Formats: sequence, C-alpha cells, structure tokens
Amino acid sequence: MQKLSSLKMSYKAATGEDYKATCSSENPAPGSKGGLDDTEAEEDFVDPWTVQTSSAKGIDYDKLIVRFGSSKIDKELINRIERAIGQKPHHFLRRGIFFSHRDMNQVLDAYENKKPFYLYTGRGPSSEAMHLGHLIPFIFTKWLQDVFNVPLVIQMTDDEKYLWKDLTLDQAYGYAVENAKDIIACGFDINKTFIFSDLDYMGSSPEFYRNVVKIQKHVTFNQVKGIFGFTDSDSIGKISFPAIQAAPSFSNSFPQIFQDRTDIQCLIPCAIDQDPYFRMTRDVAPRISYPKPALLHSTFFPALQGAQTKMSASDANSSIFLTDTAKQIKNKVNKHAFSGGRDTVEEHRQFGGNCDVDVSFMYLTFFLEDDDRLEQIRKDYTSGAMLTGDLKKILIEVLQPLVAEHQARREAVTDEIVKEFMTPRKLSYDFQ
Amino acid sequence: MQKLSSLKMSYKAATGEDYKATCSSENPAPGSKGGLDDTEAEEDFVDPWTVQTSSAKGIDYDKLIVRFGSSKIDKELINRIERAIGQKPHHFLRRGIFFSHRDMNQVLDAYENKKPFYLYTGRGPSSEAMHLGHLIPFIFTKWLQDVFNVPLVIQMTDDEKYLWKDLTLDQAYGYAVENAKDIIACGFDINKTFIFSDLDYMGSSPEFYRNVVKIQKHVTFNQVKGIFGFTDSDSIGKISFPAIQAAPSFSNSFPQIFQDRTDIQCLIPCAIDQDPYFRMTRDVAPRISYPKPALLHSTFFPALQGAQTKMSASDANSSIFLTDTAKQIKNKVNKHAFSGGRDTVEEHRQFGGNCDVDVSFMYLTFFLEDDDRLEQIRKDYTSGAMLTGDLKKILIEVLQPLVAEHQARREAVTDEIVKEFMTPRKLSYDFQ
Repeated sequence: MQKLSSLKMSYKAATGEDYKATCSSENPAPGSKGGLDDTEAEEDFVDPWTVQTSSAKGIDYDKLIVRFGSSKIDKELINRIERAIGQKPHHFLRRGIFFSHRDMNQVLDAYENKKPFYLYTGRGPSSEAMHLGHLIPFIFTKWLQDVFNVPLVIQMTDDEKYLWKDLTLDQAYGYAVENAKDIIACGFDINKTFIFSDLDYMGSSPEFYRNVVKIQKHVTFNQVKGIFGFTDSDSIGKISFPAIQAAPSFSNSFPQIFQDRTDIQCLIPCAIDQDPYFRMTRDVAPRISYPKPALLHSTFFPALQGAQTKMSASDANSSIFLTDTAKQIKNKVNKHAFSGGRDTVEEHRQFGGNCDVDVSFMYLTFFLEDDDRLEQIRKDYTSGAMLTGDLKKILIEVLQPLVAEHQARREAVTDEIVKEFMTPRKLSYDFQ
Repeated sequence: MQKLSSLKMSYKAATGEDYKATCSSENPAPGSKGGLDDTEAEEDFVDPWTVQTSSAKGIDYDKLIVRFGSSKIDKELINRIERAIGQKPHHFLRRGIFFSHRDMNQVLDAYENKKPFYLYTGRGPSSEAMHLGHLIPFIFTKWLQDVFNVPLVIQMTDDEKYLWKDLTLDQAYGYAVENAKDIIACGFDINKTFIFSDLDYMGSSPEFYRNVVKIQKHVTFNQVKGIFGFTDSDSIGKISFPAIQAAPSFSNSFPQIFQDRTDIQCLIPCAIDQDPYFRMTRDVAPRISYPKPALLHSTFFPALQGAQTKMSASDANSSIFLTDTAKQIKNKVNKHAFSGGRDTVEEHRQFGGNCDVDVSFMYLTFFLEDDDRLEQIRKDYTSGAMLTGDLKKILIEVLQPLVAEHQARREAVTDEIVKEFMTPRKLSYDFQ
C-alpha cells in the first residue's frame, strides 16, 4: 500500500492539469486519461527522479514508447546501423537494452552523407561510488564513438546534484571529478572526448551560458511544471536547471570544438528516464533555430532485488559497485540477486526457472557478450536443466573480471589525465 | 481610468495571496490589507519594472519606506557620514534624493573600524541611449567611491534585458558595452572599478556561477512570485534571474578582487525600484553564511512631463538623452518640462509657482549644486518673482554644459579603456 500511495503521489505531481497546455504532438501527457483510479496507478512511472513499476519483469518499455512518443529500435533500424558501420551492432542494440530512439535515421542519413554529428551523454554525480548500472550508457557511448568516429561531450551535472541533494558545492564537484575517473576508465578516446563539470564549465564558457539563457527564455514555468512535475515550492535553481541539461545538445555550446557552428546534430545515448529533458530540448530547438538532438534510450539496469526499481547508490546491497571486491561480488550475487528459480531443486528440475524475472539472467544479458552461450543458458535455465546456483556462478565469473579490469583501468587514470579530459580544448574529428 | 486599471493589474500581480508566506519581518507585503478597492489602488506602485503614482509630486517616498521596511536617511545619519568622511555629504544626500537605506550604519561602523567594504551598482542595458535619470546612481556611486576610497563592481544585466525584451543576445550585449562607455564617462577610477556584462562574466567565473547556484537553491518559486509578481507563464529565465542580480552582493563572486573572502560587506546604491532584488538577497544571505548587503536608495528622476512616472528610454520627448544637442535640450525643456507656474503672467506674479510639481525645479535639485542659489530660486519662483521662462532658462544653462561635458568625456573613452574596465582583474584597495 505504501508503494501504491507513493506511486500515486509521484503520478499526481507529474500529471497536473497544466501538462496538456505544454505538450506538443510528440509529448503526450503520461496517462492523460484524466481521472486517477487504482488501475491507472498501477501503470509504470518514469521521470528523471523516480522509476517505479509493480511488475517483477520491470517497466513495460513498449508502453513507455507509446507514452513518451518515441520510436522503437526495430530490426530494420538495427540492420541499417549494421550496414552504415559495416560491423555487428553492439549487443545492447541486438538485445533491446537500447530499445527506443528519436530521429536516429536522421543521424544515419547525416553519417552516410559524410555530414558531421556528435555524441552527448552525462551523469549526475550524487556520490563517489558508481555501480554497474551507471556504466551502461558509457559502455554504449564508447562503442558509438568507436564505430562512428565522432566527438563526444560528457556533462557532469554537479550543479543539479547540489540543487537536489543535501550536498555542498565542493562535495558535488568532488563527486563529479571522482566519477569522471570511472567514466574515463570505460576507454574513451582522449582526443575525441570532453568531460565537463557544470560548476566549472558554466563559469568558463560565455557561449555555453548564452545557450542556457536562450533556452531559458523559451521555456515557461508552466512547461517545466508539466514535464517535470515541479511545484511552486521548488527552488528557482531546480526550475531553471533543465536548460543547463539541454544546452550541450547544441554544438555552439562548445566553440572550442565546433567553433560557432550551430548545424551539427547531436545524438544523445541515455537511460529513458532522462527523456523528459530532451523532449523539452526538442520542443525549444526549432524556436531558437537549432537542430533537434536525436536520442537513443536504454532500459534500466535492475537492482539485485528485482526489476521493479533502478539500482540505488545509497543501498549498498542493491547494487554491484565498481569498488566491490571479488568476494563482495560473489556474496552479493549469491545472497541478494532475485531468483526466477523454483522453491526446491525438484520443482526447478520439473518446471524450470523464469528468466524474465531472474536478475542474474538479466545481468548476463547486459554483460555476457556471447549470444550463443546466453541463449544456451536461457534454454537450460528455462527447462530446469540449469539450477539457480549454476546461473549465479556464471554471472559471478563474468562480473568479477569485468569489475577487476575496470578497477585496474581506473587506477591508471591519473589526475593529469582527468584534467586533460576536463579541459575545454579542440577535439579531433574528420568531418568538415 | 486606463491608468487606474493598469495600476490595479500591476498591484494585483504583486499582492497575490502567496506573498505573505514569503515575507520576513523586514519585507511587509505592499498594501497587505487584503482586499482591493479604489482607495488602495490609488497607492503608488513600485517594482523593478513598473513605477506608478497618480500624484504630480511623484511617489510618496515616506510611505514607500514604511511599505518596503527600509530606514529613512535622516539628519543624524547624514551627519554621521559627514563626520566619517570629513567632508560635506553629496547634495543627493542633503536634498533627500538618496532618501532611504538598509544597514548604512553597519557600513559606517566597518569604515570607522578600518574594516573593508565594497560598492555594487548596475544597469539594465535596454537601449543604446541613456538619459539623465540613468546617471543618478552612477554620479552618486562615483562620489561614494571617491570619499570612501573603495572598490566598485558594476553589473550590466544584458541577460536580463535579453530575457525581458524583444532583443537578440548580441543586441543586449552591444547595449551593455555602449552603456558602459557612458558609465565610464562619469569618472570612475579604472584601478578601483570592474564593469561586467552578465553574458560575459557568468561564463568567465566559476565562482560567480557557484554563488548564483547557491542563491538559486535557497529561493523558491513561491518567493519570487511574492516578491516580483512572476506567474506560471513566465519563462524559467525570468524566474531564476533574481539570483544573478543578487550574486554580486557577495564578495567571493569576484575572486580576482577579493580572493575567496566572503566577509567583505557590500553597499548597493540604487534606485528604490531595485530594492525587491536585494530584499530577496538579504533574506538569503544568512542562510548561505554571507553578510547581508547594505543599501542606499534613491528617488526616481522625473520625466519631463511630470513626476508621475520614471523617464522612459523609448519616448524621446520624455527625457533629456545624453546624446542630445544643446538645441535639443533647450527645445525639450521649453516645450515639454511640466511647469508648476500659473496660467498667466499676472496670476503667476500674484500667487507664485509650485516648486513641488515643477519639473524644471526638480531637475535643478538634481543638478544645481549651489545650495544657496537653489534656495533663492525656490523662493523667487514660489513668490512669483521668477517666471517659468526664467526658471527653464536656468535649467537649460545648467544642463547644456553638463551634457556637453559628458559627451566630451564619453568621446574620450576608447575601446581599450572599455576593455580594461570590463576585464576581470585585481583592483587596488587599502584594506586588509
């Protein structure tokens, strides 16, 4: 009941009657039926601060696509990407982990016509410790950078975290720098990647601030109220922040990279909970004569306890942290990973396990790259031939080296390397 | 009736029921009686965008002091200033043109104890042309800089003008630079004065942005709604802007001048319509561990047509512009300066003129420094010994050289000088 009531509250906050006034054709109001009864309240809720579902399978992403007005990444699009890049698409695409997009075909048109585009992603640095789930957009973005060979900007929204959380400015900034190390450890090309803290870059780039003000002039409180559920009691910092997350979508926010060009399209890989920011950005873009950013949306990485929620950096047992030891990983998976197996070995052998709700299996879809082996595991677990213990063992053997290697790469990231990534500078790229 | 209805609307915008929730003891709501009848609507209205009164004598400043919760600059304070600086206070103080203050005694305490303070004033550059009224805070601030020998920062709110007006960013920035020339022509000490465009400085100083975010975290939409009358249809740029006007009140917004010191008090000379920004600033200051800025408030410079309104940069005949020729000044005064004289020479000789509503006389209180001569003029005009034509002639003879000298000084302001004033740099000051 508590969950239901909290769900209702979040829901209400986001579906106030002002919403409709602000939504364009691509922004249908979430659950715009009007009234609120228990059936509707059972619908998933997704915004940048809350992701809630009552289903153990997690969010119903097909419904989310309809509700957000985005497009499904279908077989046809994946094939087109494969043709464009001349190699097998990332398993995040093949397995529907990046499942939704906006205008990706436009980006491919540009790419095929040798026209430029750039990548933009980001992170809200709310604590020093990042977990596996936080890596998903970065792993994928690194792959995009490699296959398309394009520049990338990564925004650390330390100002946002200062505004939303009980943090000092120095704490938020410190987390931004620490998190940048984990991001760099994902293998980004230092010659093609600019990582910036808002607290630093906003005060270092008049062009960036000019775009922020431009966006702020073209978005009303009514609009952010509708999109983000802000209320009159929210700080003016929160209310105006969406413009700061929007600004990197426009190439002239980075004159050191793109000079004063405004025509270079941006492609944003991110978890779908960030989409509200970019729906707003796409609404504003034509009114300030900038191209709309394109998007690639990922699903959420499930908590160990199940796919009902996102992992939480504040609950140590909900996540595998990038700082966890091999032993901690083993213990967490064995103790906390929600199982789709049966109550007894006998039942499991007879009826089989349920991969759709099994967190260990879900994690393997994220991190086990071998398609054939994954399919075999699915079959064996579903048939009952594979027990939960064996499944967990496989996951542990995948995660332990993955995390250890990440830690080794992070260890190699010196302060000088961080500083270079975070210095506004030219990036190398081929396009004219 | 149109004026009354517009007055009512402005009034209503500023006295919504949310106001009370946000006002501290020093911020009584304007006309907080609740209901709105015609009697109340006749009260003066003053906020940063609207100054309205139905009285030819202008705003009732004594009432405004009570309503804003500021303090009158009385004889005692003027005497204290005279003792502190060891010279006769500026005629703007002696004549009640700067009439209201907040915490000026604290500033004098600091000064007498050899503790530092600094000056902050500003201008919203809405057009290239400035008029006489715009000079008032700068003439006074220059005097304060001279007698107290302290550093000064001058904010050009080009971002505000972009947000409020139908201007491009480049236009607003261009006006800021043009207006800076007129400000520099007032004679500020280049070694003690930093003039900045928000569009430039916000993107050049991480410390400034950090203070902006800090303020934005501590002010809600409810509060700016109460203080400024913002509505849900206002842009998020307008809603968050007050934090940008507040930030220069804190010394660590200027690390190039004050390093990371947060304890240097700020004194803000400004027209009283800017007070709402600084009431907000003073509310926030203790919550972010900064000292409250002190203020000195001026009355408004009347339009040629009478003291009911401020001069308007958009009506050429309402003002003497700093670009006007001697002939234009003569014509404008003779044709448009509202006269307190009688309908006929005979009546005037018999009953005398009314200095309280005579705009030429009002202008002389601003610009004729000789107290004895001003007093003689008052007597002669009031008795009827002096006719309106003679009074206007005196004013013209005062304004023509004043404006011509300003023009000559402005002419001498090179682009290099502007650039130096507008470059973030050390300023020289004596205090430790």
